[in-house]
Amino acid sequence: MIVKFIIDGVQWRMHIKMTVEYIGTGFYGFQSQAGRRTVQGELEDAVSKYFGSAVKIVGSGRTDAGVHAFGQVISFLLPESADTANRGQFLYRLCSGVNKFLPADISVKNAELCDKFNARSDAISKTYIYKCFVGEQRSASRDAAYHQIYKMPDIALLRSACQYFVGGHDFTAFAAELGGRSPNRIIYEFEVEQHGEDEIWFTVRGNGFLKNMVRIIVGTVLGAAEGKFTPADIGRILSSRDRRRAGATAPAKGLTLYNVEY
Amino acid sequence: MIVKFIIDGVQWRMHIKMTVEYIGTGFYGFQSQAGRRTVQGELEDAVSKYFGSAVKIVGSGRTDAGVHAFGQVISFLLPESADTANRGQFLYRLCSGVNKFLPADISVKNAELCDKFNARSDAISKTYIYKCFVGEQRSASRDAAYHQIYKMPDIALLRSACQYFVGGHDFTAFAAELGGRSPNRIIYEFEVEQHGEDEIWFTVRGNGFLKNMVRIIVGTVLGAAEGKFTPADIGRILSSRDRRRAGATAPAKGLTLYNVEY
Repeated sequence: MIVKFIIDGVQWRMHIKMTVEYIGTGFYGFQSQAGRRTVQGELEDAVSKYFGSAVKIVGSGRTDAGVHAFGQVISFLLPESADTANRGQFLYRLCSGVNKFLPADISVKNAELCDKFNARSDAISKTYIYKCFVGEQRSASRDAAYHQIYKMPDIALLRSACQYFVGGHDFTAFAAELGGRSPNRIIYEFEVEQHGEDEIWFTVRGNGFLKNMVRIIVGTVLGAAEGKFTPADIGRILSSRDRRRAGATAPAKGLTLYNVEY
Repeated sequence: MIVKFIIDGVQWRMHIKMTVEYIGTGFYGFQSQAGRRTVQGELEDAVSKYFGSAVKIVGSGRTDAGVHAFGQVISFLLPESADTANRGQFLYRLCSGVNKFLPADISVKNAELCDKFNARSDAISKTYIYKCFVGEQRSASRDAAYHQIYKMPDIALLRSACQYFVGGHDFTAFAAELGGRSPNRIIYEFEVEQHGEDEIWFTVRGNGFLKNMVRIIVGTVLGAAEGKFTPADIGRILSSRDRRRAGATAPAKGLTLYNVEY
């Protein structure tokens, strides 16, 4: 198998697409920060140790401190030293080897060899799941990955509120900051489902999300269920482009980056 | 509300029925053991602190080290000092108060006041869930509460194997030890379901379970999926009453005591 080749005098190297899981609780978010434990930092350390040379990775996007991932995607340029003669074996060993260097709260699910792949710029959409459990008391088994709400909300009302976000909108009112980026995003799907007796799961797929956007949307929709807003107010809040008019930012720990679509 | 009353010169005290959750990872099982961190030990400490007097609790049954609970039930005699004038408020405060004294990996879900209640002897049946995920690589998000298997098993074969356990049987071949108890148990229901793309959940309800019984049953059924046994062998293993003929004991961490029925 060809790992690198030369086109017009430029050496072409293969890329790795890797799907990873992490429990966000113990990290200062995805993005590397000096002196702090981050997902990117741990992944770069493990991949670099595996190959014996420094590797820089690209993530599909940042996740905030405390946010989990079930299907975050990263990419990196394959080091020249890599022997990919047997592609299946190479990828299996890569995943197993990197998993050995990773801490228990991050794991590699699978890897692919691509001629060209950038986890950030090639992403078409992302799916996030936000999980709530309903109860008067805390839940030991759900504390790490759920937001506790105290009263079962009206699911029909939540669904109706969520539908106002579907489509292309200026999401300035639902962003912690724009960071110079366009405030326009498209939400393709937004589902609300009751799981078991006491859980509510929000599943939202969009072409991209601004900082804290899913958490502010969920906080606002839960606010609507508490009577703080009507579903129809959401259209007005979107138009206002005013963050102060939207609801609270729901806690990071309820949020999971479920999948990235390419 | 009457908390205690005297019948024929004997003081009658109310009982508390309490439903608790725990993540089994950090405990040497349910039952108190001197010098070891156990669920019962933590619960007795917390309840005793809440009432300011020593309280002994009874669990519906023991769970092994590493086994989780979503609906374990405990009972205890209400201390005389308790003021239950407002029943709803008393129970809410009891749960909240005990939760404050409990570590993060145990929580109280709810509590009831009963004239008479014993979590062990009044239990009619118990429901356990055993969770597996299927993957070549470890899964950070599922490491604590799932058993990893490497190949998707044939669900129809698993279901067929599980049906041999339903009904009343002598489960000697599927017990780590009998401890002087009868080996006869009844399994009322045994379901196998695929969850999502890569999970298998076993749900089993029975009138009681011997030591490691669910784990040995799951280990044997997974062995059947790997071709080590045929489903029909299971009837023969049951009849043999020989533990050595059954399969491996599946790891504790995949098992959750889901509910206790009264």
